[in-house]
Amino acid sequence: MRGSLLYEGKAKKVYTMLGEEFQLILEYKDEATAFNGEKYKMFRGKGRLNNLISSKVFQYLHMKGIQTHFIETLSETEQMVSHTRIIPLEVVVRNVAAGSLSRRLGIEEGTILEPALVEFYYKEDKLQDPLINDEHAAYLTGLSQEDLEGIKQDARSINAHLKSFFDEADLKLIDFKLEFGKLHDGSIVLADEISPDTCRLWDKKTNRKMDKDVFREDIEDLVEIYEAILKRLEAKVHV
Amino acid sequence: MRGSLLYEGKAKKVYTMLGEEFQLILEYKDEATAFNGEKYKMFRGKGRLNNLISSKVFQYLHMKGIQTHFIETLSETEQMVSHTRIIPLEVVVRNVAAGSLSRRLGIEEGTILEPALVEFYYKEDKLQDPLINDEHAAYLTGLSQEDLEGIKQDARSINAHLKSFFDEADLKLIDFKLEFGKLHDGSIVLADEISPDTCRLWDKKTNRKMDKDVFREDIEDLVEIYEAILKRLEAKVHV
Ligand SMILES: Nc1ncnc2c1ncn2[C@@H]1O[C@H](COP(=O)(O)OP(=O)(O)OP(=O)(O)O)[C@@H](O)[C@H]1O
Ligand SMILES: Nc1ncnc2c1ncn2[C@@H]1O[C@H](COP(=O)(O)OP(=O)(O)OP(=O)(O)O)[C@@H](O)[C@H]1O
Ligand SMILES: [Mg+2]
Ligand SMILES: [Mg+2]
Repeated sequence: MRGSLLYEGKAKKVYTMLGEEFQLILEYKDEATAFNGEKYKMFRGKGRLNNLISSKVFQYLHMKGIQTHFIETLSETEQMVSHTRIIPLEVVVRNVAAGSLSRRLGIEEGTILEPALVEFYYKEDKLQDPLINDEHAAYLTGLSQEDLEGIKQDARSINAHLKSFFDEADLKLIDFKLEFGKLHDGSIVLADEISPDTCRLWDKKTNRKMDKDVFREDIEDLVEIYEAILKRLEAKVHV
Repeated sequence: MRGSLLYEGKAKKVYTMLGEEFQLILEYKDEATAFNGEKYKMFRGKGRLNNLISSKVFQYLHMKGIQTHFIETLSETEQMVSHTRIIPLEVVVRNVAAGSLSRRLGIEEGTILEPALVEFYYKEDKLQDPLINDEHAAYLTGLSQEDLEGIKQDARSINAHLKSFFDEADLKLIDFKLEFGKLHDGSIVLADEISPDTCRLWDKKTNRKMDKDVFREDIEDLVEIYEAILKRLEAKVHV
């Protein structure tokens, strides 16, 4: 079923599918990286957890009417998705100030952002994914301002859905990163993954960090935390 | 006439005016700083040159119907302006890629940006004036999206006027920084200065840098260059 390796990223391998021009297989890896790849570690079981968590998130969003690349979960570490041309933007939505936002703009960690802030970063490893504004985004991607506005609107609805989704599992959604891609027909859909690698999630009662920050800050074992998230989602959220 | 010193910046001193609640005196200093104040040097005569150049620019913009803080030139180094509450944004307009834009986004120096790019930076020395997007700007300034759009529109018309203004003096306007302030009646006007300290200007024929980059990069004597600009403007542009 798997064709050739198209691309290997930090978190996933991307394969073509034999005989299926418009589909890809994403294989989730056990590696974690942080600080633009400076920090690196293997976590046995992480690939499975992110694959299953991201699958569940995408199934939920599909149910809510969001257009995504997700087709189906193929195995513990693999999923089938539509082949897209990824738009080189990281679209970040922030409900609560944390991380680089707090450092860059001096907004205290924990400050509630209401309405949520939507940000574009230019997805370009060599430049360390710099923050950009809408005019840079249009210039760098060639997308129209309408398409960019559409992406921001989508990010806001996805945020609304994800907040309820994680709330069911007693998790606060602090912020998260999305990627969008163009299908062969030109339409723009949500792509990539949504997992504790790409979201900040804090326990609703204790504010305990339950995401990749436990690795960034060496707080706790990442696999145990991701396992706990999957358990909560399996127990509480039915899709 | 001068009242008390209200504020001393890196390039200017700001004084109240005796008996005039809504007016200020800006005194241009002979100091130049670069790289957020790391590099520093005295240039005898620079204050006079920037005062006279900025006065001429503001008179020209006034003639073109732009609302500004400028009232009149008081002396070789002083001007009278309307007292504003400065909006903590540095509004940058770029006609040609240079400097931090090229470094941050990997756009080659000299690339023509058509239409010009407008950027907001958060004017906050402690944070080193970070680039922000429109949502950050609304959050940090409390301004509405309409006011921010208005500022961007103003920046674009000012750009059109400044391009012709400098073109008369055989100078290409590469990019520049603006500040806006609120008058006591709440209206937003162009404030601060427009000078070779706040613009990138290249000679039309030779592409020679004729702005603060000659100090940043130790290319040539800053005062001679600024003097040449004032001479060209006095010979060619009548306001
Ligand atoms: N549906 C899709 N079609 C095409 N590419 C996809 C799709 N979904 C995700 N991708 C891409 O797969 C690649 C591998 O993912 P991974 O998360 O490992 O990358 P990364 O190392 O985080 O980032 P980078 O893109 O910088 O390599 C990413 O470039 C991602 O944009
Ligand atoms: N019309 C005005 N009303 C009030 N303040 C003004 C006006 N025009 C300019 N200013 C302010 O005068 C201050 C002094 O100018 P200067 O250029 O020396 O400051 P700076 O050192 O570049 O920047 P900073 O504002 O960070 O001190 C600036 O803060 C500027 O915003
Ligand atoms: Mg990734
Ligand atoms: Mg200044």
